[in-house]
Amino acid sequence: MHHFSLAALWWQTAPATATLSSDQLYLWIALAIGVFGLLAALLFARSVLASDAGTREMQAISDAIREGAEAFMRRQYGTIAVLAIVIAILLYGGYSISPRTAPYAAVTVISFLIGAVCSGFAGYTGMYVSIRANIRTANAARTSLNRAIQSALRGGAVTGLIVVALALIGLGLLFLAFGGFHHPQEVPYRLVGFGFGASLVALFAQLGGGIYTKAADVGADLVGKVEAGIPEDDPRNPAVIADLVGDNVGDCAGRGADIFESTAAESVGAMILGAALYPVFGLKGVLFPLVVHAINLIASTVGVMAVHSKENEEPMHALNRGYYVTSLLAILGFAAAVYFMLGGRWWLFGCGILGMATSYLFVVITEYYTESRYRPVQSIARASLTGPATNIISGLAVGMETPAAPVLVISAALLLSYYFGIRGLEDAQIANYAKGIYGTAIATMGMLSSAAYILAMDTFGPITDNAGGIIEMSNQPESIRERTDKLDAAGNTTKALTKGYAVGSAALAAFLLFSAYLEEIRNVVMDRVAAAGGYMPAGWSFDNVNLASVPVFVGALLGAVLVFLFSSLAIQAVGRAAQYIIQDVREQFKENPGIMLGTSKPDYGRCVSIVTKAALREMVVPGLLVILLPLVVGEVFRHFSTAFGVHAATNVPMIHDMPVNLSGAEAVAALLMVGTITGILMAMLMNNGGGAWDNAKKFIESGQFGGKRSEAHKAAVVGDTVGDPFKDTAGPSLHVLIKLLATITLVLAPLFL
Amino acid sequence: MHHFSLAALWWQTAPATATLSSDQLYLWIALAIGVFGLLAALLFARSVLASDAGTREMQAISDAIREGAEAFMRRQYGTIAVLAIVIAILLYGGYSISPRTAPYAAVTVISFLIGAVCSGFAGYTGMYVSIRANIRTANAARTSLNRAIQSALRGGAVTGLIVVALALIGLGLLFLAFGGFHHPQEVPYRLVGFGFGASLVALFAQLGGGIYTKAADVGADLVGKVEAGIPEDDPRNPAVIADLVGDNVGDCAGRGADIFESTAAESVGAMILGAALYPVFGLKGVLFPLVVHAINLIASTVGVMAVHSKENEEPMHALNRGYYVTSLLAILGFAAAVYFMLGGRWWLFGCGILGMATSYLFVVITEYYTESRYRPVQSIARASLTGPATNIISGLAVGMETPAAPVLVISAALLLSYYFGIRGLEDAQIANYAKGIYGTAIATMGMLSSAAYILAMDTFGPITDNAGGIIEMSNQPESIRERTDKLDAAGNTTKALTKGYAVGSAALAAFLLFSAYLEEIRNVVMDRVAAAGGYMPAGWSFDNVNLASVPVFVGALLGAVLVFLFSSLAIQAVGRAAQYIIQDVREQFKENPGIMLGTSKPDYGRCVSIVTKAALREMVVPGLLVILLPLVVGEVFRHFSTAFGVHAATNVPMIHDMPVNLSGAEAVAALLMVGTITGILMAMLMNNGGGAWDNAKKFIESGQFGGKRSEAHKAAVVGDTVGDPFKDTAGPSLHVLIKLLATITLVLAPLFL
Repeated sequence: MHHFSLAALWWQTAPATATLSSDQLYLWIALAIGVFGLLAALLFARSVLASDAGTREMQAISDAIREGAEAFMRRQYGTIAVLAIVIAILLYGGYSISPRTAPYAAVTVISFLIGAVCSGFAGYTGMYVSIRANIRTANAARTSLNRAIQSALRGGAVTGLIVVALALIGLGLLFLAFGGFHHPQEVPYRLVGFGFGASLVALFAQLGGGIYTKAADVGADLVGKVEAGIPEDDPRNPAVIADLVGDNVGDCAGRGADIFESTAAESVGAMILGAALYPVFGLKGVLFPLVVHAINLIASTVGVMAVHSKENEEPMHALNRGYYVTSLLAILGFAAAVYFMLGGRWWLFGCGILGMATSYLFVVITEYYTESRYRPVQSIARASLTGPATNIISGLAVGMETPAAPVLVISAALLLSYYFGIRGLEDAQIANYAKGIYGTAIATMGMLSSAAYILAMDTFGPITDNAGGIIEMSNQPESIRERTDKLDAAGNTTKALTKGYAVGSAALAAFLLFSAYLEEIRNVVMDRVAAAGGYMPAGWSFDNVNLASVPVFVGALLGAVLVFLFSSLAIQAVGRAAQYIIQDVREQFKENPGIMLGTSKPDYGRCVSIVTKAALREMVVPGLLVILLPLVVGEVFRHFSTAFGVHAATNVPMIHDMPVNLSGAEAVAALLMVGTITGILMAMLMNNGGGAWDNAKKFIESGQFGGKRSEAHKAAVVGDTVGDPFKDTAGPSLHVLIKLLATITLVLAPLFL
Repeated sequence: MHHFSLAALWWQTAPATATLSSDQLYLWIALAIGVFGLLAALLFARSVLASDAGTREMQAISDAIREGAEAFMRRQYGTIAVLAIVIAILLYGGYSISPRTAPYAAVTVISFLIGAVCSGFAGYTGMYVSIRANIRTANAARTSLNRAIQSALRGGAVTGLIVVALALIGLGLLFLAFGGFHHPQEVPYRLVGFGFGASLVALFAQLGGGIYTKAADVGADLVGKVEAGIPEDDPRNPAVIADLVGDNVGDCAGRGADIFESTAAESVGAMILGAALYPVFGLKGVLFPLVVHAINLIASTVGVMAVHSKENEEPMHALNRGYYVTSLLAILGFAAAVYFMLGGRWWLFGCGILGMATSYLFVVITEYYTESRYRPVQSIARASLTGPATNIISGLAVGMETPAAPVLVISAALLLSYYFGIRGLEDAQIANYAKGIYGTAIATMGMLSSAAYILAMDTFGPITDNAGGIIEMSNQPESIRERTDKLDAAGNTTKALTKGYAVGSAALAAFLLFSAYLEEIRNVVMDRVAAAGGYMPAGWSFDNVNLASVPVFVGALLGAVLVFLFSSLAIQAVGRAAQYIIQDVREQFKENPGIMLGTSKPDYGRCVSIVTKAALREMVVPGLLVILLPLVVGEVFRHFSTAFGVHAATNVPMIHDMPVNLSGAEAVAALLMVGTITGILMAMLMNNGGGAWDNAKKFIESGQFGGKRSEAHKAAVVGDTVGDPFKDTAGPSLHVLIKLLATITLVLAPLFL
């Protein structure tokens, strides 16, 4: 294997482009489409920002939200930057210790930092637009439902397009810069730092934002609705702006960073698998994931443009039309990519279709569990009749039921795409395992091929939520409120659906990322053995994670416990941060009795500032836990005697006549795999349970089981409050955790041997 | 391998005993001590029953409880008997299909039925005594704390001793009957049916009892305390007797069956591993688990006898003294058994000590999370100040935190006992893996060596709970109530501790049971290959469960989802059954207004009968799910093409030049292992979360955070109600589920190939 030095690496692009082959063209096309995606985002942003920003009163509220959100983001990214730099230094140090990893120290750290910056930028710009789109949407809602939907969706599309375009451009340029055209089989491994950087920022963005948003929400509700007896979004509540800020920093910025890291991590994983298939597809197999994202950008842009709504139509219908347009274009593009890049192996196209079908089924199942038309939500609403305890019991039971159907879907998708992969690559001279895993990677690509549109729909949620809040707070007439309520309901649905999509993609991508890790370990072992002049069995690969071995089982146990402990810490963080708000609001009411009388304004900024500090403090411990546990397990188990190993040492890589000790790598693999399984189930429990509680409350508010202000409604409010940190803090953070585990193990892999 | 026929098998004991060797003597000694255990139980029962049964009023209440409990048990065991017979027939059919398993059909079904009957008998007799000990304890409490403690503990000891003695005698006699002295390496595999029978009955006993007890409890509380505003255990509440009945059928009978199946399943597993070590220890290694249970019986009997309390002492102190006496004797006995039977390999004694230490640490950790002296319970109590929502959030967060410390303890115990096993068997000519796993088996034996005393302490709980209820309902003076309240508090603690112990033993035993399954598969494969004249690599063993293979990963995913779905179904069952009670109580209040005035008596029997029917109906679906899923996964994946397999087929068992297809067996192994991991974590979440909620409520009732009838108290009552089905239905049923998964996979193993 070629050892890179930074100087030799940088700008090897020039000679590469000088000998441009047709395969290399794919990268340039993808990059060009990436730039087009950024331009489309810019145009959407301009069209949204150009529209009217409403009354002075509305602007005052919107400004307060914007200031709060920007203040939070500044501080949050400040904190994250410090953490990222510390980790970069430690990473550099860790890689530099051993002479065998030292050559990769610089490239890994550089791609880590670039990934981190892109992830942060993706989250930030998305939010930048959404906190400006909210008021335009509110203003548009005063005259036209169609314009309001378009304003919110295009605002969301800015996030969606930037996220995908940045992942594409970032990975593409790094691939070029690290000499990918010269060493296409090796450079993908150098990109793991990019995925790790993206995941790390995403975890903290999602976790910090999630803590912020729910601490503000729970705090505002408890002290406003419950204690003071004033309605939601009442301007007398000092925490109300903090609450509206939360929607942006949690949902927008958090989910943006989440999908950015999905896109980045899964693309890197798929490129690594493409590198393993180099004998079959050449450079095209490595570039395929980037081309899929180019297709994604075009399909999603057209999809967003296609959304028009009649004035009396359900907003979801209009949004779904755009989704269908996007999906259709994505399928066509995918077929073309398979034809031109993967030699028209239609079984592999079938994998892509499987991925899209999985995504669709996840959405349907999520709807079943979170919409009030179906049994689960209605059962929670009915249980509210006997008080909060039965509401909670029923909601938890629904939450624990929710993973069953999606897991069956994922199981079928994994098995089928594995099988399709083997069929599609029947003639290739590689192991069946590699063929099958590549099939699951293609399925993941299929699932991600409409990611930008999905993310636009997701960001639609907080924008309409904010628009509703602005309308509510600026005393607009009832007819306009009805319009924003409709938008808000659609936004709640899209938010729930995207979470289903995010978990689904995490589950389907799991194998792709595991395999990338196993490939990476094989690579490191080969390197080691070659350097020490040891024995390397022909065709050996690290493809065994034996759960029947005690250290591996312990790794698995720790992976599962990590998910439980992380969830606990995230939820406790919300509780603690909410206490600070509650105290502040109580103090403000006490200091200034004019607030409740409506004669003087509360100090919104104080609440925002307090919850900002609290959220950022609280995100550090759970975040570090996720980073440190795999490192500790890998390092500790690495030093376990091979006596713990199960296998008789036959035909394994040897150095100085001793088998290479894979205990650490294997235990970490189990931690990753069982952590992923537990994480997926727990995330579904929390997302869907929380969504079901929320909608059970809304169902009662619609007049069922006694309606608003009945005892059943009070009970349902308790359930909704419990569900909040589930569905908006712990659940979404678990998606990121799963992928962060994958990328951190990829990056740390060389240290486990 | 020798093929048994029933006729040849039955009563091979006689020739065996004719040539009694010193090794065989151990079995006879163990059996004799088993009989002694039964006698000791009889004496304890007589001493409890001989004491005075209190006033006529008290007896009326006690009679009502007894009648309700007996009616439930009759119907429950009727339902279970039908299910068991159906399963026995299917099992016989399944084994008979293939000519290779047919010879074992009869023995497997016979040991299944005997195991089932013993398990049922263990649960029933334990409850028989406890529903008679409750009133004697109540009466004793009128004069002396010491006599009350002794009465409750000895009543509990009847369950503890019978459970362990029956497991010992049942397994010992089957071993004899199946010709164990002639074929000591093969007969342990024939005993798996016994473990399965025990687990099956235990699951339904625990699940049905758990649903009953919590449906009655939740129903009685909601309609009594919340709706009608009358205190707990108020005789005007028609559901109050059903509630008291529930304590017996859920806690006593359920836990009795639970520990019976732990003892049985883990002993069978350890005997199978002992058989694998036959070259080292001979017959003694196979009999060792039975001898440990003999020690357990003696140590626990002495421990129970040693409990005396001063009148002003905390009851827990007296109970702990008995525990220390038992532990000390168990250590001495264990040392003697290691010296005489395992050739004084003191590293193995170390394994036993590790097991005892694990048990102790689990108890300490459980105390930390469930006692009001410590942070977790206090944090829940404090969160109650801001209402039920924060109480629930805080309780769930505590619940999700609880598995972390126990998992670290279990990880250390597994790794250390594995290491000790390798050291202790350094000179033996077997694979390190077998040595290490035997170490974990010895550790499990160590943990179980005080099981009878632990179970006595556990059953102490419902007896004192009932005694408190009887005192409450029969209008005794305040001073006596204070005494029973003290007893009741101690009972709550012992119940929580035993649950910690039960999860701990399930976790530590996991490896023992996995390995028994892997051994069983190896055995079946060898059989197959021999019969077909195929190729069997020397020293081959089935010791690889490769999580990196897609079908295996899917098996793992399904194992985890099983735990979630089962918990959901169990909790939903409680909710539905509780609705029936609530309706009936409401109707009774409406039909007969004299009930609330205290002028006429409610119809207790109607409530008991309604909840009985509901609980039994509700237990069937979740129970069948656990039985069917491993069967379906094994059968479906068995037919998966070997193309899914990861391994190049080198040096594996072959029949007709095709590798033996292990896909089904491997996927089931993953289901078992990851199901176990998830089950352990979920059980801890539920048991400890539920216990913490309960004690947070009690902490507030003791005057903290506003005391009884404050808003915080109301919030805490909500948490307590949510925790009820967690800690008394789903959590304990999950212990049983984990072990049932292990025994059912053992029994079905031949069908997966």
